[in-house]
Amino acid sequence: MHSDITDGPPEPELEQLYRDFATENLNPLWTQLSDLMPESPAPKAVPHVWRWNTLYPLAQRSGDLVPVGRGGERRAIALANPGLGGAPYVSATLWAAIQYLGPRETAPEHRHSQNAFRFIIEGEGVWTVVNGDPVAMRRGDFLLTPGWNFHGHYNESDAPMAWIDGLDIPFVHYSDTSFFEFGSERVTDEATPPTSRAERLWAYPGLRPLSGLGERTNSPIAAYRWEYTNRALAEQLLLEDEGQPATIEPGHAAIRYSNPTTGGDVMPTLRAEFHRFREGAHSRTRREVGSSVWQVFDGSGTVTLDGREQELATGDLFVVPSWVPWSIQARSGLDLFRFSDAPIIEKLHFNRTFIEGEQP
Amino acid sequence: MHSDITDGPPEPELEQLYRDFATENLNPLWTQLSDLMPESPAPKAVPHVWRWNTLYPLAQRSGDLVPVGRGGERRAIALANPGLGGAPYVSATLWAAIQYLGPRETAPEHRHSQNAFRFIIEGEGVWTVVNGDPVAMRRGDFLLTPGWNFHGHYNESDAPMAWIDGLDIPFVHYSDTSFFEFGSERVTDEATPPTSRAERLWAYPGLRPLSGLGERTNSPIAAYRWEYTNRALAEQLLLEDEGQPATIEPGHAAIRYSNPTTGGDVMPTLRAEFHRFREGAHSRTRREVGSSVWQVFDGSGTVTLDGREQELATGDLFVVPSWVPWSIQARSGLDLFRFSDAPIIEKLHFNRTFIEGEQP
Amino acid sequence: MHSDITDGPPEPELEQLYRDFATENLNPLWTQLSDLMPESPAPKAVPHVWRWNTLYPLAQRSGDLVPVGRGGERRAIALANPGLGGAPYVSATLWAAIQYLGPRETAPEHRHSQNAFRFIIEGEGVWTVVNGDPVAMRRGDFLLTPGWNFHGHYNESDAPMAWIDGLDIPFVHYSDTSFFEFGSERVTDEATPPTSRAERLWAYPGLRPLSGLGERTNSPIAAYRWEYTNRALAEQLLLEDEGQPATIEPGHAAIRYSNPTTGGDVMPTLRAEFHRFREGAHSRTRREVGSSVWQVFDGSGTVTLDGREQELATGDLFVVPSWVPWSIQARSGLDLFRFSDAPIIEKLHFNRTFIEGEQP
Amino acid sequence: MHSDITDGPPEPELEQLYRDFATENLNPLWTQLSDLMPESPAPKAVPHVWRWNTLYPLAQRSGDLVPVGRGGERRAIALANPGLGGAPYVSATLWAAIQYLGPRETAPEHRHSQNAFRFIIEGEGVWTVVNGDPVAMRRGDFLLTPGWNFHGHYNESDAPMAWIDGLDIPFVHYSDTSFFEFGSERVTDEATPPTSRAERLWAYPGLRPLSGLGERTNSPIAAYRWEYTNRALAEQLLLEDEGQPATIEPGHAAIRYSNPTTGGDVMPTLRAEFHRFREGAHSRTRREVGSSVWQVFDGSGTVTLDGREQELATGDLFVVPSWVPWSIQARSGLDLFRFSDAPIIEKLHFNRTFIEGEQP
Repeated sequence: MHSDITDGPPEPELEQLYRDFATENLNPLWTQLSDLMPESPAPKAVPHVWRWNTLYPLAQRSGDLVPVGRGGERRAIALANPGLGGAPYVSATLWAAIQYLGPRETAPEHRHSQNAFRFIIEGEGVWTVVNGDPVAMRRGDFLLTPGWNFHGHYNESDAPMAWIDGLDIPFVHYSDTSFFEFGSERVTDEATPPTSRAERLWAYPGLRPLSGLGERTNSPIAAYRWEYTNRALAEQLLLEDEGQPATIEPGHAAIRYSNPTTGGDVMPTLRAEFHRFREGAHSRTRREVGSSVWQVFDGSGTVTLDGREQELATGDLFVVPSWVPWSIQARSGLDLFRFSDAPIIEKLHFNRTFIEGEQP
Repeated sequence: MHSDITDGPPEPELEQLYRDFATENLNPLWTQLSDLMPESPAPKAVPHVWRWNTLYPLAQRSGDLVPVGRGGERRAIALANPGLGGAPYVSATLWAAIQYLGPRETAPEHRHSQNAFRFIIEGEGVWTVVNGDPVAMRRGDFLLTPGWNFHGHYNESDAPMAWIDGLDIPFVHYSDTSFFEFGSERVTDEATPPTSRAERLWAYPGLRPLSGLGERTNSPIAAYRWEYTNRALAEQLLLEDEGQPATIEPGHAAIRYSNPTTGGDVMPTLRAEFHRFREGAHSRTRREVGSSVWQVFDGSGTVTLDGREQELATGDLFVVPSWVPWSIQARSGLDLFRFSDAPIIEKLHFNRTFIEGEQP
Repeated sequence: MHSDITDGPPEPELEQLYRDFATENLNPLWTQLSDLMPESPAPKAVPHVWRWNTLYPLAQRSGDLVPVGRGGERRAIALANPGLGGAPYVSATLWAAIQYLGPRETAPEHRHSQNAFRFIIEGEGVWTVVNGDPVAMRRGDFLLTPGWNFHGHYNESDAPMAWIDGLDIPFVHYSDTSFFEFGSERVTDEATPPTSRAERLWAYPGLRPLSGLGERTNSPIAAYRWEYTNRALAEQLLLEDEGQPATIEPGHAAIRYSNPTTGGDVMPTLRAEFHRFREGAHSRTRREVGSSVWQVFDGSGTVTLDGREQELATGDLFVVPSWVPWSIQARSGLDLFRFSDAPIIEKLHFNRTFIEGEQP
Repeated sequence: MHSDITDGPPEPELEQLYRDFATENLNPLWTQLSDLMPESPAPKAVPHVWRWNTLYPLAQRSGDLVPVGRGGERRAIALANPGLGGAPYVSATLWAAIQYLGPRETAPEHRHSQNAFRFIIEGEGVWTVVNGDPVAMRRGDFLLTPGWNFHGHYNESDAPMAWIDGLDIPFVHYSDTSFFEFGSERVTDEATPPTSRAERLWAYPGLRPLSGLGERTNSPIAAYRWEYTNRALAEQLLLEDEGQPATIEPGHAAIRYSNPTTGGDVMPTLRAEFHRFREGAHSRTRREVGSSVWQVFDGSGTVTLDGREQELATGDLFVVPSWVPWSIQARSGLDLFRFSDAPIIEKLHFNRTFIEGEQP
């Protein structure tokens, strides 16, 4: 009854049909199903490692050559995944950049629907001002500038400073959800307190101010300080030494940064974690739906991405696209910061994890 | 101290810097900020209307020329948004297609992480079999095949049948969350009951089987029947006549299809609604974050998309990309089915709505 | 060092200590621990059966002797659990009463924080008016009057009518959460429509009005009609006949009335269900934390409460206090309505269930 | 038609009716409505103050006269509300007691469905062992022993120690939800670490161990240490000095102890807070549904309960039954611990608050 698509005569009619589809802005499923709906995630983004000792000098050169100010807004240099055709995206959904601020410079205030954080692996002297609240940036700290909060950066020191920005720019761009608004040219409060007002109100274990009840979309903790992260990880390894359940696998301690008003992730689209591997420890090989970016905070080791092992040194960044197998091996002790799009994947119920050696 | 980016000499160093960025898979923010992070959503997808009297004959021709079976899987012809470069996407996140099944044909079973539904504006005689449960398809019905449920279609009549498929294929493709698996060549149950087992268990107002407690990711109601949709809309207009609050604006009744185990949307990524306009009624002009697709079920009127008014007749489909102003005007009474990516937008807290004449 | 509490000398000092405790409004734990904190629930309420053929004539006599009106408010006769010292409580937390309204009588409007429902096993002709919305009462219907909604009852017929009221009066009394306000002397709308406005807006399978989005504390469905309950139960037994999962145990179908905006219970403190046993079927023996009340709607059988089997006929009510083992045996087919305080128990995480023959 | 209930002849029939009600375990609503369903909460519990300088010596005498051990389990002396007829209940739902442990004594391990906490206003040297995890008790600390966790107390010092226990014993007794089980005669771990394992894993601002994801019914933080509570309150007052929003009313700082996995209360039935009043500050007068108990931790002032002002000194406890107006006035700075049944009230949607001078 039907003509056979694979052989013979009726091809002219079929060709005409496909031309008519194109004219009418139509596109048949049957010719492209396997690309559209692969059997498992087939990301265009590829695993890749960026070296801190390459990134940082380039950021320095930008500091010499490119001013920071209204219009360009930020001296941020994005990791561009080699698989994504030059787009400034580290993965399909994530943005990661090194931002560099010279002595006494200000990155002007703005706000946008994109969610952002800063993670600092070296230096200090810059304050991020979030809705008028100056937040000191220091090694090991993790700072939030959630969507639609005005924020700028201010270097009050005589030394430059660089750090990592993480945002959901690709996701927001893709999903057509971007709003952006310019704010003050300078930061709205140039004070340089050691602790932000947000922390003074919110950064206590399990204590909430009665003046701030209810759930909040974003964590109200402006900065998660290294002192606590470090102590939490150290204690997990000590508890493991004592035979107590604490780590996620032998020699592998990890914390997730959380919103104390919900227990969930710090912002609606971004998850952030810190991982510590004991000397010689390694993770099992995992595949996860969704992409993540890691930065080595301290120590040395290797990462195996899709079967290819690569050296890691302090400051190096690598991306794990969706469903790419990864494992980490520590030579010395190894500390890594990680962020991912896991909240997007989980809220929409697409999450799956495969761990080598476990039953699915 | 800094060179001025806008004029003069140091360009060679800057050019070299940009070349070095490219070599190292880096990309500066400051040269592309406004494209990356626009002041309000700037979708590539454009508003567009597809005509049923164009679509249906093309589907018929496909029925004559293209077999349906394993590999191609479905004789589905996707609406390809003119702004998206020929991709089979009706908007950034959504897929909409007309699917056509000839007499006695079977579209084989498969399952995928993509969420899907069917909406029927004419015809009958096909059963969609979802995890072994045959679900009759009839005019006005809305059927679910949620992610990872095996499903196939079976035409037990001597007439062809066409309907609309809606999926989150572009979103799943973009977010690298696709899993796909082939199932049975024929449907696993060729019975043709008027009502599915899922409906017999679940489709009652406010009643839940004790054998199915707890929240479910997807609505367990396999088919939302026209009889109830029609009655619900008719009652809203009657209640409006009686001076009772029921409609969302004068002469505009609307229902949302919901998951009875949560009260939320039927599937994690897709929202579906049905709207009825009284003769001569119109909606206010709205902008919403996120995209939606409408199909005229019955009646005539016009839609104004970004200021351009276009005629609507039964079966016509149109897409409203993110933040594009839209309004609908009914000439006769006008019934429309709508689906959108609103659950994605809302769960990630990017939702905003602007209604003309209301304070934001 | 310490005196021994169980024998000998230092008793005078101890007696003085206990007297001093009493004087200072103190009370030692150690003398009464086992009563205060028993090893498993030790309710004062006892299992008991009330007979419809006793209740109904007493309600009729009340109709002849006691007027209904402002002050007394309702001609309701409460089941008083024999273990509770004459208090009008069917269990520690629950109230159950037969309410009787003579021809053309009105029970005036009032509102209270207590949550209430009506269940009807015979008769018709009365409308319950909830916040101005008249709701017809007919055999098999389950009606809600949630906390703080004005409501009255109006008999527009020439025959008396009786039904069952269920409330959380004992719980509200105990927890000191009672608010009460008188309303109109007559019902605010004496219309007698077959269907309430609330049902016309809300009582469809899985459809929600766009004018009523968001979660609601109470189900907006004013009446759950027998037609749907009956059909849902019948289909469960048919599905069981077809070998499909549908019943909760062989020959035992059951539905829970739910809030379509959440999927949860109809009101914050009360759960309501309907159970149907096939001829000759029986339940396994269960113990549950929390109390429940059952009414036979139709058929005959027995209930075994704490090992004692008792006959059941249409209209009979029985109470199952917390942790009392119960099982039901159907002679003919047996239909039963059930309500309980399960939402209180579950929200506070005290729920446990023991099913004979299952591992805990 | 009806006889008039208030005057005259038909009384014999009515008396017979009431006798028949009693015989049949029935009880009419109309004779007792106003007691059963008052217009606003009418608690039997009354406001009352217990003095620390009375309580503590009585606890000491108990220490001399009454052993602690299996059977009596705890040397705990409960506050018995004068309105509750001698029952060991501080309010309808709450239990509060002073517990006293002599040098080197052990209170044996047990577990129960009742939720419990300890709050310490003086002394140290005792460890509470919760599921095998020893938790040091020190001035200002707030310790959890949630429902069904084994726990015992162990005094490793040569001095006695006393503290406050708070539980939901009356509620659990009332709602017939008590389960109780004896455990080890001695505590299962007699180590005396300064910090519990639970704190080492969980007590960081906004950090969660990856080994402990998901929501938990109870807060996993075994002890909320005074150091953090004190600092949080001090910062709120400093922020107020700086003109920042932080306190709940002028001069009144307050924190709520929370479950970091949900942001909600520490246990399903009990809320705990700490309040600090600046010298000379006072609260507005409030009425709240539900009861609460306060203990003065430090400082002096007065409380006004139902219009009656009473002096407060360190260690004094007072109870505020449901809907009783209360206000607190600080003379010196005044620190108070508070606990309440608010989670019960709020989860069941009975909560209302009236604040003098605010619109309801």
